[in-house]
Amino acid sequence: MNVAGIPYRTIWLDQEDAGVVKIIDQRYLPHRFIVESLSTPDQMARAITDMHVRGAGLIGAAAGFGMYLASLTADRSSLDSFMVDMARSAEMLIATRPTAVNLSWAVQRILDGISASGASVEDKIAICLDSAHAIADEDADFCRRIGRHGAEIITGISNSKAGATVNILTHCNAGWLAFVDYGTATSPIYTAFGQGIDVHVWVDETRPRNQGASLTAWELQQQGIPYTVIVDNAGGHLMQHGMVDLVITGSDRTTFTGDVANKIGTYLKALAARDNGIPFYVALPSSTFDWTVRDGVRDIPIEQRDGEEVRYIEGLAEDRLTSVLITPQNSPVANYAFDVTPARLVTGLITERGICPASEEGTLSLFPEHRGTVPQP
Amino acid sequence: MNVAGIPYRTIWLDQEDAGVVKIIDQRYLPHRFIVESLSTPDQMARAITDMHVRGAGLIGAAAGFGMYLASLTADRSSLDSFMVDMARSAEMLIATRPTAVNLSWAVQRILDGISASGASVEDKIAICLDSAHAIADEDADFCRRIGRHGAEIITGISNSKAGATVNILTHCNAGWLAFVDYGTATSPIYTAFGQGIDVHVWVDETRPRNQGASLTAWELQQQGIPYTVIVDNAGGHLMQHGMVDLVITGSDRTTFTGDVANKIGTYLKALAARDNGIPFYVALPSSTFDWTVRDGVRDIPIEQRDGEEVRYIEGLAEDRLTSVLITPQNSPVANYAFDVTPARLVTGLITERGICPASEEGTLSLFPEHRGTVPQP
Repeated sequence: MNVAGIPYRTIWLDQEDAGVVKIIDQRYLPHRFIVESLSTPDQMARAITDMHVRGAGLIGAAAGFGMYLASLTADRSSLDSFMVDMARSAEMLIATRPTAVNLSWAVQRILDGISASGASVEDKIAICLDSAHAIADEDADFCRRIGRHGAEIITGISNSKAGATVNILTHCNAGWLAFVDYGTATSPIYTAFGQGIDVHVWVDETRPRNQGASLTAWELQQQGIPYTVIVDNAGGHLMQHGMVDLVITGSDRTTFTGDVANKIGTYLKALAARDNGIPFYVALPSSTFDWTVRDGVRDIPIEQRDGEEVRYIEGLAEDRLTSVLITPQNSPVANYAFDVTPARLVTGLITERGICPASEEGTLSLFPEHRGTVPQP
Repeated sequence: MNVAGIPYRTIWLDQEDAGVVKIIDQRYLPHRFIVESLSTPDQMARAITDMHVRGAGLIGAAAGFGMYLASLTADRSSLDSFMVDMARSAEMLIATRPTAVNLSWAVQRILDGISASGASVEDKIAICLDSAHAIADEDADFCRRIGRHGAEIITGISNSKAGATVNILTHCNAGWLAFVDYGTATSPIYTAFGQGIDVHVWVDETRPRNQGASLTAWELQQQGIPYTVIVDNAGGHLMQHGMVDLVITGSDRTTFTGDVANKIGTYLKALAARDNGIPFYVALPSSTFDWTVRDGVRDIPIEQRDGEEVRYIEGLAEDRLTSVLITPQNSPVANYAFDVTPARLVTGLITERGICPASEEGTLSLFPEHRGTVPQP
C-alpha cells in the first residue's frame, strides 16, 4: 500500500545487498516512518519479540526471511553443521511469540524445503530465499483475495443502506502493516473504497500498545479513507446507537472450529455486536488456521507480555518520542496480549478462498484437504 | 479514607477561612497529591468541567459547596438581586457536566432551601452552608451504608469459595475520590477487607482519562488492598478463565427501571459478565437515581468530551507530568464519556437502603416514595 503516495510492502530484500532484509520499524509509527536493515537471524528474532514487526502475516513473512538470514550466517563447513544451525535459528524464531501460528508455520515450511536430500548448502540457501519470497508473495496474494471476498459484504450493506456510509469497526491493526500487503481486516475496506463505496472506519485505539490509534489510523490516513479513532471502551455505545454496520477484525490464530484468538478486547466487541445484531466477521489467510485445536478458549496459549506496556504509554511530546507512566509507580499490572472469541459470536470467516461460517463444517467446506486429519471431539 | 495514613474527605470547608472550599485536585493523581483552594462559584464550575473533581457524588457535593461560594459572592443589595445571582450560578454549575444527575439534584436542593420566604440574605447564606455540609455528610453516610450492604455479597462469595481470594473487577473510579468518602463500588470492598475477607481487585485502566489506572489504583494502594491494573480490553478474557468472581461499578445516572449510565465501557463488561455467569452489581446512592426516565439507552444524554482526551495521554516522564500524542497529528477522534448498560444485564443495585433488582419493581420497593410519580410506559 501507499506511504505518502509511494507503494511499499512491510518487508523486502534490499535491492542492492542480498544479505540485508528491510522492514518498516513500526514502533515509531504514526510519528516517524523508519526503515530498518536486518542481516542476522538474531536481529530478526529481536525485531519480532520487540515488535518492530508484528501482525499474523508479517511475523510469518519475517520468520521466513529470518530463516533466510539464518542460512546466510549458518556454519557451511558441512551439511550437518548447517542443518544444526538452521534448527537452532528455527527454534529461536518460533520462540519469539507464542500465540501466533503463522510463525511456526513459516519456519516449518522452510525447514521442510531444505530437508530434501541431495541439495548442497548453496541450494538450501537458494531454497530459503525462494521460500521466504514465496511466503511473502502468497501472503500478499491471499490478503488481496480476502479483500475481494470481504468487499462483497460491504457492498451488500451499502446497497441495503441505499449507498449511505457503511460504518465499519475494527480492533487492533489487521491492516497491511500486519501483513506483507493489503492486510486482512482492512483489505475488504480498501477494495470496497476502491470500488467507490462510501465507507467510514471506527478505529479502536487498542490498548496496551495502541496499534489501532497508531498503525490502523496511520495506514487509513495514508490511503485517504475516512476514519475516527475511539477508545476501546466506546464500541458498545456506538453499536447500541446504530453507528456501526459491521465489525471486521483479524486473527492471530483461529481453530478449525471457528474460535478466534485475536488482540485482547476482540471478544468484548464480538459480544457487543451480538447484543446489537451487528455482523461480526474475522478476516484471515489460511496460514492463520490451527487444524489441531478444537477448543480455542481452553487450549490456545495466551501470551502474557511485560507489565511496562501497561504502566507506560509512548507518544510524541514536543516532537520527541516519550514514555509516560500512567499508574502508581511499580503498580501491579497484568498484560494478556490476546483473547479468544468463541465461534458462536462470529458471523463468518473471510479467507482467501471465500467466506465460511465459523464452524468445523464451515472451515472444512473451504479447506477440504483437512477433512479426516482434524482431532475428533 | 486515608492518604499516607491520614484520613481525608475529597471536599471540605477550610478550617481557617470560611470563604474557602478545599478539594483534592485529582488531575495530578496518582503522581502528585495536591489540595486546591476555591473561593468563587466560577472556580468551582471550572474545577468540575475540567475534572479537578469528578464522580457522581463528589460533583454533587462540589455543586453544593459551589452554591455556598455563590452565596458569598452574590449581590447582597437586595433579596431579589441576591436570588438572581444565585439562579445564574445555579445555571452555570448545572451546565458543567450533562450526564451526572447529582449535579442538578444538589443545586436544586439548595435553591429550594433558600427559596423559603422570610429569610434574610445572611440566613440564606447560612442555609447554603448547612445544605452543602448536609449534602456532603449524607453522601459519606450513604456510601458507608452501601459498603455494609455490598460487603454481604462479597462475604457470600468468600464463603462459597471457602475463604479463597474474592476477585472483584471494577471500571473507572467509583471510589472515595468520586464521592465525599468511602465511594460506592469500592465501599463494599473496603468494608469486606476491613472484616478480614481476602479480596483482590482488577482495576480497569478506563481510557480515555484513565481514572482506574490513576485514581482507583492509587486509592486501593493507599488502603493496602491488593489490586492489579489491566487494560480495558482484558476483562473479558479474565472472566472467561474464572479469574473474576464479581463485577461492581458505580453509576452516573440510573433510571428507576434499572438502566445504568456509567463510564464508557461499562456496558462491555456487563456483557462479558453475563456471558460468563458472573454477577454484575452497580453501587449507587439514591441521589444518582433518575425517577423521570424510563428508557435509559434511548433517553439519557451522553456527554461528548474534547477529542484531545483521546489523542493525548498524560503521565509522568522524568518526574514531569507530560502529555503525549498517541494518534496521527490531528487525527479524527470521537469521545463519548458514558454508555448505558441495560437493566437486563445488571444483577442488582446496591443502595444505601439495601440491594434491589435492577427493575422498576426493584427500585420502587426500596424507594416507595416514588411510586405513582414515575412516568408510565
